[in-house]
Amino acid sequence: MPSVGTRRGHHACVQRYEQLLHMLRLPDKEAAPGVRKREMATTTGSERVPVPRDRDDDYTREAATARADFIREQTGQELEHVTSYSFDPSTLTGNVEQFVGVAQVPIGLAGPLLVNGEHAQGEFYVPLATAEGTLVASYNRGMRLLYEAGGVKTTIMDDRMQRAPAFLFASAREAREFGEWLRENFDDVKKAAETTTKSGKLQDIEQYTAGRMVYTRFNYTTGDAAGQNLTGKATAAACAWIAGKYEDIEHFFLESNFATDKKSSQVNMLHTRGKRVVAEATIPNELFQRIMRSDSRLMYRARQVSNLGGFMSGVNNNGAHSANGITAMFIATGQDAANVAESSAAFVYAELRENGDYYYSVTIPSLIVATYGGGTGLATQRECLEMLGCYGKGNVRTFAEIVAATVLCGELSLGSAIVAEEWVESHDLYGRNRP
Amino acid sequence: MPSVGTRRGHHACVQRYEQLLHMLRLPDKEAAPGVRKREMATTTGSERVPVPRDRDDDYTREAATARADFIREQTGQELEHVTSYSFDPSTLTGNVEQFVGVAQVPIGLAGPLLVNGEHAQGEFYVPLATAEGTLVASYNRGMRLLYEAGGVKTTIMDDRMQRAPAFLFASAREAREFGEWLRENFDDVKKAAETTTKSGKLQDIEQYTAGRMVYTRFNYTTGDAAGQNLTGKATAAACAWIAGKYEDIEHFFLESNFATDKKSSQVNMLHTRGKRVVAEATIPNELFQRIMRSDSRLMYRARQVSNLGGFMSGVNNNGAHSANGITAMFIATGQDAANVAESSAAFVYAELRENGDYYYSVTIPSLIVATYGGGTGLATQRECLEMLGCYGKGNVRTFAEIVAATVLCGELSLGSAIVAEEWVESHDLYGRNRP
Amino acid sequence: MPSVGTRRGHHACVQRYEQLLHMLRLPDKEAAPGVRKREMATTTGSERVPVPRDRDDDYTREAATARADFIREQTGQELEHVTSYSFDPSTLTGNVEQFVGVAQVPIGLAGPLLVNGEHAQGEFYVPLATAEGTLVASYNRGMRLLYEAGGVKTTIMDDRMQRAPAFLFASAREAREFGEWLRENFDDVKKAAETTTKSGKLQDIEQYTAGRMVYTRFNYTTGDAAGQNLTGKATAAACAWIAGKYEDIEHFFLESNFATDKKSSQVNMLHTRGKRVVAEATIPNELFQRIMRSDSRLMYRARQVSNLGGFMSGVNNNGAHSANGITAMFIATGQDAANVAESSAAFVYAELRENGDYYYSVTIPSLIVATYGGGTGLATQRECLEMLGCYGKGNVRTFAEIVAATVLCGELSLGSAIVAEEWVESHDLYGRNRP
Amino acid sequence: MPSVGTRRGHHACVQRYEQLLHMLRLPDKEAAPGVRKREMATTTGSERVPVPRDRDDDYTREAATARADFIREQTGQELEHVTSYSFDPSTLTGNVEQFVGVAQVPIGLAGPLLVNGEHAQGEFYVPLATAEGTLVASYNRGMRLLYEAGGVKTTIMDDRMQRAPAFLFASAREAREFGEWLRENFDDVKKAAETTTKSGKLQDIEQYTAGRMVYTRFNYTTGDAAGQNLTGKATAAACAWIAGKYEDIEHFFLESNFATDKKSSQVNMLHTRGKRVVAEATIPNELFQRIMRSDSRLMYRARQVSNLGGFMSGVNNNGAHSANGITAMFIATGQDAANVAESSAAFVYAELRENGDYYYSVTIPSLIVATYGGGTGLATQRECLEMLGCYGKGNVRTFAEIVAATVLCGELSLGSAIVAEEWVESHDLYGRNRP
Repeated sequence: MPSVGTRRGHHACVQRYEQLLHMLRLPDKEAAPGVRKREMATTTGSERVPVPRDRDDDYTREAATARADFIREQTGQELEHVTSYSFDPSTLTGNVEQFVGVAQVPIGLAGPLLVNGEHAQGEFYVPLATAEGTLVASYNRGMRLLYEAGGVKTTIMDDRMQRAPAFLFASAREAREFGEWLRENFDDVKKAAETTTKSGKLQDIEQYTAGRMVYTRFNYTTGDAAGQNLTGKATAAACAWIAGKYEDIEHFFLESNFATDKKSSQVNMLHTRGKRVVAEATIPNELFQRIMRSDSRLMYRARQVSNLGGFMSGVNNNGAHSANGITAMFIATGQDAANVAESSAAFVYAELRENGDYYYSVTIPSLIVATYGGGTGLATQRECLEMLGCYGKGNVRTFAEIVAATVLCGELSLGSAIVAEEWVESHDLYGRNRP
Repeated sequence: MPSVGTRRGHHACVQRYEQLLHMLRLPDKEAAPGVRKREMATTTGSERVPVPRDRDDDYTREAATARADFIREQTGQELEHVTSYSFDPSTLTGNVEQFVGVAQVPIGLAGPLLVNGEHAQGEFYVPLATAEGTLVASYNRGMRLLYEAGGVKTTIMDDRMQRAPAFLFASAREAREFGEWLRENFDDVKKAAETTTKSGKLQDIEQYTAGRMVYTRFNYTTGDAAGQNLTGKATAAACAWIAGKYEDIEHFFLESNFATDKKSSQVNMLHTRGKRVVAEATIPNELFQRIMRSDSRLMYRARQVSNLGGFMSGVNNNGAHSANGITAMFIATGQDAANVAESSAAFVYAELRENGDYYYSVTIPSLIVATYGGGTGLATQRECLEMLGCYGKGNVRTFAEIVAATVLCGELSLGSAIVAEEWVESHDLYGRNRP
Repeated sequence: MPSVGTRRGHHACVQRYEQLLHMLRLPDKEAAPGVRKREMATTTGSERVPVPRDRDDDYTREAATARADFIREQTGQELEHVTSYSFDPSTLTGNVEQFVGVAQVPIGLAGPLLVNGEHAQGEFYVPLATAEGTLVASYNRGMRLLYEAGGVKTTIMDDRMQRAPAFLFASAREAREFGEWLRENFDDVKKAAETTTKSGKLQDIEQYTAGRMVYTRFNYTTGDAAGQNLTGKATAAACAWIAGKYEDIEHFFLESNFATDKKSSQVNMLHTRGKRVVAEATIPNELFQRIMRSDSRLMYRARQVSNLGGFMSGVNNNGAHSANGITAMFIATGQDAANVAESSAAFVYAELRENGDYYYSVTIPSLIVATYGGGTGLATQRECLEMLGCYGKGNVRTFAEIVAATVLCGELSLGSAIVAEEWVESHDLYGRNRP
Repeated sequence: MPSVGTRRGHHACVQRYEQLLHMLRLPDKEAAPGVRKREMATTTGSERVPVPRDRDDDYTREAATARADFIREQTGQELEHVTSYSFDPSTLTGNVEQFVGVAQVPIGLAGPLLVNGEHAQGEFYVPLATAEGTLVASYNRGMRLLYEAGGVKTTIMDDRMQRAPAFLFASAREAREFGEWLRENFDDVKKAAETTTKSGKLQDIEQYTAGRMVYTRFNYTTGDAAGQNLTGKATAAACAWIAGKYEDIEHFFLESNFATDKKSSQVNMLHTRGKRVVAEATIPNELFQRIMRSDSRLMYRARQVSNLGGFMSGVNNNGAHSANGITAMFIATGQDAANVAESSAAFVYAELRENGDYYYSVTIPSLIVATYGGGTGLATQRECLEMLGCYGKGNVRTFAEIVAATVLCGELSLGSAIVAEEWVESHDLYGRNRP
C-alpha cells in the first residue's frame, strides 16, 4: 500500500519527506526510459498491441510516421492530413506523448478589437480557432460595435492558481487544531512550497472543514504560466514538509475537489482560479440600432429574463456564450482548452441608463491563461500569441485582458442577435458545414 | 425596434410568422454577399481597418494569404506555420469566416481502448489533441488497466438537444394558461418545428415558471449532428407558429439560460444535453497494485473525501478530470470544444467490494458530440473520426461510447496517481514544456 | 440483514410485498404498545434513565405532569410556563410523543392584507408567530403599501408532493431497461400506490439516472394535506409492487436525496415541491415615496445588485427574507416549520417601468402547506387557520395564496428599508429583546 | 430620494455619517410613538381598517384582548386558546408587535442525550417543539443508540455572523482600488463598527468582486447572541464611516445577498454563518442490529446512493433531515426558526470500517443559535433553555453542541429506518394526526 498519504509515525514521514523533496528537486532524467521500459515489457506475451514507441527518441518524424503506419495497419485509415505538420517533433517534448501528427483547426481573424486595459492598450486582431460557422463573424461584429463605442475597458481583479490538498484526522477536534497550526506555520509552509519553483509564490491557504477533514486551497501567483503544474509540485513539497512536522495526520490527498481543476465550481467563481477579469463598456443605443439592428431596451429586458433563467437553471454563467470566444482563442494560442470547463463561468451585470445607453460588464472569475510554458511555445500557437504581442514572459496580463475584451464583444453580438432574431438567420446564411 | 419578439396583435404576427418561416425554409444564397457588402461599406472613411475579405470568394488560399499579409503589415508577425495547412480552404464554408490558416494541435495516440458498448465494441486507438504533457501517457496507462480488467462497459441512457425559448405574459395567470395551451398543442408545435429539419425530432417540451414567464426546453433528437443549429432553427419556426396562434404573448426570446449552451448547469446535469452516457467497470485490486502502483482501498478513501469536497465546493463533477480526455478528443475529431463547458460535468459513483475489487462508474450527462456536420468533415478531424470508424451518419452513438470509455480510463489513472503520489512525479518526468 | 431493500429472487419478494402491503393497509394498533414495551425493557439494569411514559395512555395531563416532574428531578428546572397549556393532551395523538407541555410563541397580527387570488379574495388579518422584533411591523407596513396599491395578485402554478426512491441494478444497462419498464407500467404503479390513500393521486414519475442507479420522483397531488406521509406510504406500496414484479432490482431505497424533504435543492426549485405560487403587483413610485420613504429607482438598482450577489453566493432565493413571513405563519397555523428549509427558496423578478412604477413578483417554488392533518388541528393553530377562513378541507389553495401574498409584502417592506436605511434604524427602535 | 446610499461629495457624506452614527448610538425612544402616530394617521378617511394599537402601551393584556376582540368582529373567530398565555405581555417588547396571543406548540421530551463536547458534557433531556408525529420518538431512539455507543462527540469549528454590504463604483478599476483601501484600513473600520456593540467583534472582511461592485462579508463574533441585529448595526456604522472617508463610492447597500440571512447558500456552507459544528460518533454494527433492526453495511450503501443523489439534485444537505431536530429545538428554545433556512444545510461524511463499525459525522456549517437576546428570554423558551442549563451568557457553545448532537441522533435514526423500512411503518403506527 502506498505510504506517503498515510501517517505512520514521525520517523517514516521525515524519510519520505526527504525522499519526495529529492524527487521534486531533481527530476531524474534516467527514470523516464524506465517507465517506457516497463510499459513495453508488459505487452510481451499479451494480445494487447500498444502504440509503438521509440525508446531512444520518441519525438521524431520517424517515430510519428511509425505510429501513422501502425494506425493504417490497425484501422486501414491513412493519416494524410494529420501527418501534414510544419514543425519539428523534437519541439514537442513535454507537450504530448506518442505523437502522430496534428489536428489542423481553422483560424479566422476578428478585429480590430479596441482595448482600454491596464496592460492591453490599443487595437488587436484576434485569432479564433474554430469550426463553428458564424462564430468569427459574430465576434467580429461585436468588435466593430465596441470599436465605435470607444473600446472595451478591462481590469484584472485577482490572480491566483491553486492546489487543494485535504487532510484527515482522528476527529474534528484534531482537524481544528491542525487548522490553527497551519495558520501559525504559514511562513514555513510557504518556504517549503517555494523551494520547488521560481515563479510561484504562495499567497495564502484557505481552509474549509467538514467531518474530520480539513480541505485547503493553496493559492499561488504563478507569473506568466498557467501554473497548474508548478502549484502541484509546490503543494506536494509543502505537504511533504507538513507531514514531516505534524504528527497527527491520518491521510492526506493532494486533490479533493476543492481546486476543481478542469471543472466548474462555485468556490472558484467566488474565489478566483487563474485571472479574475472584468470587461466593461457603455454603448449608446444609436450604435445598437445602426450596427446591430437591435435595441438596448429590448436587450435589457432579455437580460433580465436570462438572469432569472440562469438562476433557476443553476448555470455557471448568466451571460450568453463566453466559452465560444475563450475556446477559440485558447486553441489558437496554445492554452489548455480543457480549462474551458472553469473559464466558461461568468457574471454579467448590465444597466440600462435613462438615455438608452447600455452599460454592460462581464466578469470572468476563472480565466486560466499563460503566455509561457504549456502549449504556448508550439509553432502555430506561438505565432498567434506573437500576433497579439503576447508571447513569453511579462505578457500574461495583457493576454488576459484581450481575452476578456473579446468575450464582451461576443456577448453583445449574440445578445443583439437574440433580440433581433438575426441569430437563427445569421446561422442560416453562413451555415454550419453540411457535408 | 425589432418586431418578432414582441406581440403586436394577431395580424402582424401572422405576417411575421410567414416571413420567418419563408426565411427558414429557403436560405437565400444571395443574402450572404449583401451582408458582406454592408460590412465592407462601413469601413470607408473610418480609421478602423477591418480584416480584408474577398467579396467574390473568401474561401481561397489567396484570400487567406491576403489576410496573413495584412497581419504582417499590421503586427509585424509572419504566420509561417499558421499558413501551413494541407487542405483546400474551399472546404471551410460554413465552418469559419475570415480564414487565415490553422492552429496545429499535436495529436498523441492512446490505446488500445477496449470497449464493451452497445455500439462501440472492441479495440480502439484514440487520437488525443493536446499540449498538456502526461495527458496522453496518463490516459494510455488507464486504457491498459481497463484492457486487462476486461474493458469498459458503456451505455447511452438518454439523448436530447434543446433550445429554450422564454415567453412573457401580462401576469403569472396568463403564463399558466399558455403552459396548458402549449401542452395541448404539442402535436402542432412539433409539426411547425420539424418543417425546418430532416433529422431533428421534437420529443417534448419542458416548462418552468417564474413570475410572469414560462421558460421552456424544446427537446429534440438530432441524429448524428450535435444539433445546436437545427434545434435553433426548428425552435424559431415553432416560436413563430406559436406567436401566430397565441394572442397573449408579450415577448419571447429564443434563449434565456435554460438550455445553457456552452455553459454548465444543474438543469442539464439533471435533464441531459447531448448524450447521457455511463461508462463502468469492475477492476480487481491486483491490477491496481501491479499496473498502477496503487490500491483500491486507498483510492476509495480518496473518493469519499473527494465526493464531499465536491459537494462543498459546488463543483459540476465529483470526479477527477474528464474534461482533459473530452477536450483532447473533441479537438482531434472536430467537435465544438466550447461544449467542454457542458460536457465537463460528470457523476462518479464507486464501490469498494469486500474482496477489494473496485466498481467504478462515470456518468457524463451532457456529452455533446457529432459525427456529421460542424467540424467533423475537416481534413484532419475527419481522418481522426475515420480512424475510430466513426465518420458520418449512423456513428454518433459509437463515438459517444468511445469518449465515455476514454474518460473512465483517465479517471482511474489520475485517481491512482493521486493516491500513489505518482501524480506530481509523472508530471515532473514528462514535464510541461519549458521553453 | 433487512430484506426488502434487497432483491433475492421473485418468490421472497412477492411474499415481502404482500406482507408490506398488509402492514400498510392495516395499521396494527396493537403494535404500538409493543414498541413501547421494548423501549421500557431496555432501561432495566442500565444507568440510562429514559423519559417516563405511561403504557396505557401517554396523552394525558398526568403523563405530561409526570414528565415535568421528571425534568425537575433531573435538572432542577420548574416548567411553570411550559406546562401552562389550554388544551386536552388527548388531542395530541399523532402529533408528538413524550409530551410535556408547550412552547408559547407570541403571535402578532398584521393586516389587512388585500389579496386578489383565484382562491383567496379580499382582506385578511394575518397571524405571525415570532419573537423577532420588527418582523410584524415590517410585514404590516408592506401590507399597507400593497393595500394602497390595490392588493397582491396570486396564482398557483403547480402542485406536487413527492417521494423519491432510488433503484440499483447490476449495471447502467439494466437501469435503463427498468426506466422503460417503469414508464410502460405507470398505470399499474399508480394503482398500487393509490391503494394506500384516498386523497393522494400519483401524477407522474420523473427519472434521473447515474451509474447503475435510477433515481425517481413520484409526484402526487395530496389534497389539503401537505402529504409527506401519504406520499411516503403510497410510494412504499408502489415500490413493494414494483419489487414483486421486476426481477432485476438489486436494492431500492425509499429516499435518496431527490425529494429533498426538509432540505433546499435545485431540483425542487425547478420542479416544485408543495405549491408553486406566484405573488405579483405593480406599485406606483408615489406610494414608495409616501409610505416607505423609499424610491422605486433606487430599489430597482439594489435589486440588480442583489440578483448578481445571489447568483455568485449560490443562494436559494434571490429575494430578501421570505423565510421570515413563512416561518411566522407556519408556526401560527400548525404547518411543519422544518419545511422552511424548502419553502425558503424563492425567485424574485422585478421591472422598473418607464413612469417609475415598480412591477415586482415573487415565486415560491416549494411552498409546503396544509389546512388538514399534521399540526393544523391543534388548538391555537386551528384558531389561526380559522381566522383566515382556511381550516380544513378545500382551503389549502386559499391558504397558499395568503402566504405568498404575505411574503410579497415583506419583500417590498425590507427592500424599501434597505435602500431607505430605515432598516437598521427600525430594528433599533423596536429592538430585539435585550434581557 | 434617500441620500446615504448615494455618494454626493465628501461634505454631505460626513454630515450624514455623523447623523447616522448619532442615530445608531442613541436610539431615540421618542421616535417610536412618532412612527405609530404616522401609522394611525394614514388610516383616517380610508376604508382600510388597521389592527388596533394602544399608543401609550401596546404590550398589555388589554391591548392584546382588544386585538382578539377585533379579530372576532372582523372574522367571527374566537381566539380562546390563542389568548391563553401564561406570561405578562410587557415582557414582549422587542419581540413582537401587535401581540394578540400565542401559538402553543407541543413539546415532547427526548433523551437522555449523551454528549462528549468541549462545552456540553454529560446527559441532556432535549425539548422538541413539534406537531410531526414520530419526530420525538425517532430522535429519542437515535439518542438511545448513541447513548449505548458512548455518546456524541461535538466540536465547534468556527463562529462568525455577518452582514454583507455591497459597494458600487464608476468601474471595476475603482472597485479594485476600494478593495485595497478597505484591507489597509481594516483597523479603523473595525473601530467604527465596534462603537455600536459590546459583544460584537469584527474579525475580518471578505471581498468578492463582479462588474463594478465589491461585495463584502463583515464577519463578527457575537458572544451569546445570534447577532444578526448587532452585526447589522455595527456594519451600518462601519459603512457610514467608510462613506465619510472614501470619496468614490457611487452607492452602497447594506445587504446584497452575500450574507444570505434566512436563505441557504453555498457561500455560507463554505464560510460559516453562526456556528460551524461537527457531531461525530463510531457505532458498532451490533447496536444497529439490536436497537435499530438495521445494519451498517446496508446503511452505508444507502448513504453512497444518497450522496450522489444529493449531488445531482443540488441539495444543501447530503444527510437526511437535520432540519427536523433543529426546528423543533429552535421553537422550544426561542431561536429564530426562520434561520432553519440556513441551519438546514449539512455535510454528512460516513465510513464503514472493516469490522462493520460505522463512523458517522454531520457538519452543520450555519447553525445560528443564541442563549441570550431574541426569543430566548420568553417564558416557555427560557424554561427550555434552562432545562438544558443553557440560558443566558456564556452558554451558546454548549447549546450549539447539544443541537448538533441531537441532529446526529436523528440522522442515524432515520437512516436506519429507511433501510429497515421501519420508516413508513413507524409513521403509520404513531401516525400523523388525522382529524
